[in-house]
Amino acid sequence: MSTYTLHYAPDNASLVIRLALEALGQPYRTVLVDRKLAAHKTPPYLKLNPHGLIPVLECADGPIFETGAILLWLTDQHGELGPQADSPQRADFLKWLFFISNTVHSALRMTFYPEKYAGPDPAHQTALRLTMQDALKRHLAELDVRAAKGPFALAIQLYLGPLLRWSVLYPVQKDQDWFSLDAYPNLKQMCLTLDSLPCTAAAQTAEGLGPTPFSAPRYATPPQGSAT
Amino acid sequence: MSTYTLHYAPDNASLVIRLALEALGQPYRTVLVDRKLAAHKTPPYLKLNPHGLIPVLECADGPIFETGAILLWLTDQHGELGPQADSPQRADFLKWLFFISNTVHSALRMTFYPEKYAGPDPAHQTALRLTMQDALKRHLAELDVRAAKGPFALAIQLYLGPLLRWSVLYPVQKDQDWFSLDAYPNLKQMCLTLDSLPCTAAAQTAEGLGPTPFSAPRYATPPQGSAT
Repeated sequence: MSTYTLHYAPDNASLVIRLALEALGQPYRTVLVDRKLAAHKTPPYLKLNPHGLIPVLECADGPIFETGAILLWLTDQHGELGPQADSPQRADFLKWLFFISNTVHSALRMTFYPEKYAGPDPAHQTALRLTMQDALKRHLAELDVRAAKGPFALAIQLYLGPLLRWSVLYPVQKDQDWFSLDAYPNLKQMCLTLDSLPCTAAAQTAEGLGPTPFSAPRYATPPQGSAT
Repeated sequence: MSTYTLHYAPDNASLVIRLALEALGQPYRTVLVDRKLAAHKTPPYLKLNPHGLIPVLECADGPIFETGAILLWLTDQHGELGPQADSPQRADFLKWLFFISNTVHSALRMTFYPEKYAGPDPAHQTALRLTMQDALKRHLAELDVRAAKGPFALAIQLYLGPLLRWSVLYPVQKDQDWFSLDAYPNLKQMCLTLDSLPCTAAAQTAEGLGPTPFSAPRYATPPQGSAT
């Protein structure tokens, strides 16, 4: 019997957690969150996560939300994916994990859902999206500098790979030329490596991610559910 | 000899880390970051934190940035302030810590520095600030519901107290009436408790925070440096 239940939508932030569970070899069952029906905004889901965001991982200690929190919790629970609390590498691991969670992931989310931040006026939304794309370029350049010094812990790679994938793909049909993975050679190398991992193969099958999901992404064609 | 060096500016996010170090009873030395000279944007500081943000905590394992990361690292290093990795309370602790870091703190920051997100147009900045103030009210209401179920770990309280303080005070002279601590009775009770802690007394002296820094804040009158 699996200990974990992952509430997911294809090619959503739940992908990070699916990759982590696969990399750990942990059994888990999945529950599809039907975005077309806004299932993540319904009372049963809000009971798991009052913020109505995907993913939630149900574990023996209750439901966990926040991608970074779940990732760190799994890292510590299974003693893999990243440096443990007594490691001299832990400080470096945590500072980049939090930066990716609260700055990179947040900034990308602002470009996907500008209306949630800038309000209903399209001009305000465009200004936000363009400013955040500039900020993201700076953030990714810093991550590329860090990656040049040595590979990130796997937990961080499994977070960054999807973020880079979504930078190529979303929002659909909106000035996607702001981003090119070629501008970040060390992150590109990381994506090439990620493409070939067994955990990626499992996610490709489950979520229809296509042949090179991190180094040269295409839109997902999931067997069930929808990414947006 | 102190193990820790905290790079701080009065009443900045470094306050969270000062409170944590004081609560732990850990010796530390401080280095004032002179915001009036934008010292956090100069090469020596950028070497500690390439993002140019305050705080940085220097420890034996190198410089740590990101308030949430430092707070968690101290929590684990000293076995206090919050549940450790093997505790059944750890999942709850991490999910709220990440939420506060990547959503509450981020949203508040957008209301302080809207130009960094919305760009130079004042109309865009106002739209962002007002939208994020509405979002913050929802986030704080969720935190209040959680606080009603039992106190947050001290690490989280030491993060939330300053965020609530800044909600009252900043940005200076800009529609501060969006926020009232009375709307969040459980968080207000937490602030009243925080006001009376010895770690708060130490921070009040060091950063000139005034008599009731969390439950009824006034602008800081720091013995050195400046908050903005």
